[in-house]
Amino acid sequence: MHIEVISTVNEAREGRLAQRTAIVIDVLRATSTIVTALEAGACGVVPVETVLEARALGRSGDLLAGERFCRKIAGFELGNSPYEFTPEVVRNRRVVLTTTNGTRALHKSLRADHVLAGCLMNATACAKAAAELRRDVVLLCAGSHDEFALEDGLCAGLIISKIKSFCGQNVETDDFGTAMHGFYQHAQHNVVGTLLSGTTGKRLIKLGCSRDVERCAQIDCSQAVPRLQGDTLQLS
Amino acid sequence: MHIEVISTVNEAREGRLAQRTAIVIDVLRATSTIVTALEAGACGVVPVETVLEARALGRSGDLLAGERFCRKIAGFELGNSPYEFTPEVVRNRRVVLTTTNGTRALHKSLRADHVLAGCLMNATACAKAAAELRRDVVLLCAGSHDEFALEDGLCAGLIISKIKSFCGQNVETDDFGTAMHGFYQHAQHNVVGTLLSGTTGKRLIKLGCSRDVERCAQIDCSQAVPRLQGDTLQLS
Repeated sequence: MHIEVISTVNEAREGRLAQRTAIVIDVLRATSTIVTALEAGACGVVPVETVLEARALGRSGDLLAGERFCRKIAGFELGNSPYEFTPEVVRNRRVVLTTTNGTRALHKSLRADHVLAGCLMNATACAKAAAELRRDVVLLCAGSHDEFALEDGLCAGLIISKIKSFCGQNVETDDFGTAMHGFYQHAQHNVVGTLLSGTTGKRLIKLGCSRDVERCAQIDCSQAVPRLQGDTLQLS
Repeated sequence: MHIEVISTVNEAREGRLAQRTAIVIDVLRATSTIVTALEAGACGVVPVETVLEARALGRSGDLLAGERFCRKIAGFELGNSPYEFTPEVVRNRRVVLTTTNGTRALHKSLRADHVLAGCLMNATACAKAAAELRRDVVLLCAGSHDEFALEDGLCAGLIISKIKSFCGQNVETDDFGTAMHGFYQHAQHNVVGTLLSGTTGKRLIKLGCSRDVERCAQIDCSQAVPRLQGDTLQLS
């Protein structure tokens, strides 16, 4: 199995996704929030790129959710903090979600055979699902404002580590994947500190959301593996 | 001091270079070869982007050097292996060098206030020179065929580590720099093995050049810090 890591959504080329399993990673916070929402009982999450699309697509009973520059969108029921997506709020509801980078990355990955949403919270479950799909894997780090985001690279390294443990010596990584795997091995004993030292982590601290960072750093707290089916992420 | 790492030559934007010190890194093999050539007594190395430019620029007494796809260019005196650049061959000669990625990266960096050539062989000397220039630093990894190259990222991490040791706690890195610094700390005890595991390393092994990889992995074997002065790299 070959694993390739793409450093930001802008680097994603469709030709690199065909016939592969794509794992979209946006640790702070889109994919962490999607995992939380589905685990809490939402019946699906529809990722859309723009606020207008979200409003147009939302049907009666749907929850509109999302952020721009880490802040909730005016008129939307929910922002992009995992803490908002409780069972009381989301059970049996469909969520229409737009975020700055994560939903763009999900749209970019549509040419892949399978699209999963990965984060630290579901890393092992996500790696296991990818291993079972028996395709080459592309880990697509969403990044932030067209730049590589530290937390997404760390998560890519963790998922590589887990896929290697499932698939043994038959796993090869591209150069960027090798670097992220090494970086994860260095940083694995200080995950929260690493997340807080990154650009997005620092921005979230300034906005009073450091609790979100700590929550998104909880490795393997969930078994939920969101998978894109049509235009909706659901648990398979 | 702020240190930013650019993952490949294609990612280099001129706006990110102004008023900074740029360190161009192409471990396998352009910047390692440039360091070797100047240390061996060449009076200058002129990096050019194309074979035609090299031929047009070469004056009587110059040495034409370079590679395409890791192979020497037909009609040129020298390829791109550090072993070719001995004092007997290059002393007091000017070298006109064209390589696939490294010379492109040097040209991209022209908007920086200072441009240095860095590699594993001169990492500490290069970091010290950059620290003394008291500008923010951009580490420009040349990469290979528009992709991130493992060895360049490793070298960026090493140079960050050394700049931090010279400048103390006042050094901040962007997210990619933090990841490369962590990757270097993980890989530092197996530098040759890391280089041989990368895409370029594997290609050089296939071409019978693994000796070059071992040579380019010799951390701090040189004190030479090539610096761009006009169109020519020289020792300052």
